[in-house]
Amino acid sequence: MAEAPFSYQGLDRVIHEKARLGIMTSLVGQRKGLAFADLKRLCGLTDGNLSRHLQVLEEAGLVRIDKSFEGRRPLTKCHLTAEGRQRFLDYVGVLEKVIRDAAEAGGSEAARPSAPKRA
Amino acid sequence: MAEAPFSYQGLDRVIHEKARLGIMTSLVGQRKGLAFADLKRLCGLTDGNLSRHLQVLEEAGLVRIDKSFEGRRPLTKCHLTAEGRQRFLDYVGVLEKVIRDAAEAGGSEAARPSAPKRA
Repeated sequence: MAEAPFSYQGLDRVIHEKARLGIMTSLVGQRKGLAFADLKRLCGLTDGNLSRHLQVLEEAGLVRIDKSFEGRRPLTKCHLTAEGRQRFLDYVGVLEKVIRDAAEAGGSEAARPSAPKRA
Repeated sequence: MAEAPFSYQGLDRVIHEKARLGIMTSLVGQRKGLAFADLKRLCGLTDGNLSRHLQVLEEAGLVRIDKSFEGRRPLTKCHLTAEGRQRFLDYVGVLEKVIRDAAEAGGSEAARPSAPKRA
């Protein structure tokens, strides 16, 4: 039954990449979206890196990017799409499974102070 | 103080890669190690992929690989090193933070019901 229980197929590679995981986690609570500059600060990314990763997320349909003006200054705002939100929730569900697996294996004293050893 | 709270610096790239995450999670509960063939099955990897990722983990000092014979058949066994174990625990601690961040952002309805079981 449980073929390859540690293959973690559900760990969507588009989201799993470290910088993009930060971007998705930043955006998930922001129904009104986040400005490029705020996202950059929250994720500790350079302009170039953030642009590149946003493009990957946009092409995958997970993020929507709106460009407008605030007075004369260009303003770029980023939002999760409905699909992005759902896929992020699915992804987080798999992360939880990784943590449970680690804890059950007795490998997560961090998660479980006195972990029982499994035979 | 919390500069770039979503940069997740602690998400060690050597461990974070999906296949290697499966390998590390498989090994963490196996004090006696796992045979190459078992690891392959548990992680759903091909010979070539498993070899390649094990080499990365070995070069990073996280995994030890012992080659011996069982009768005439070569036997390859893989173990976490003490450092590998510690770095995996640290890594899992950061994953837990990602899940907490997602839940706090209200982005983890999926995560909430079964939220972080801390002992």
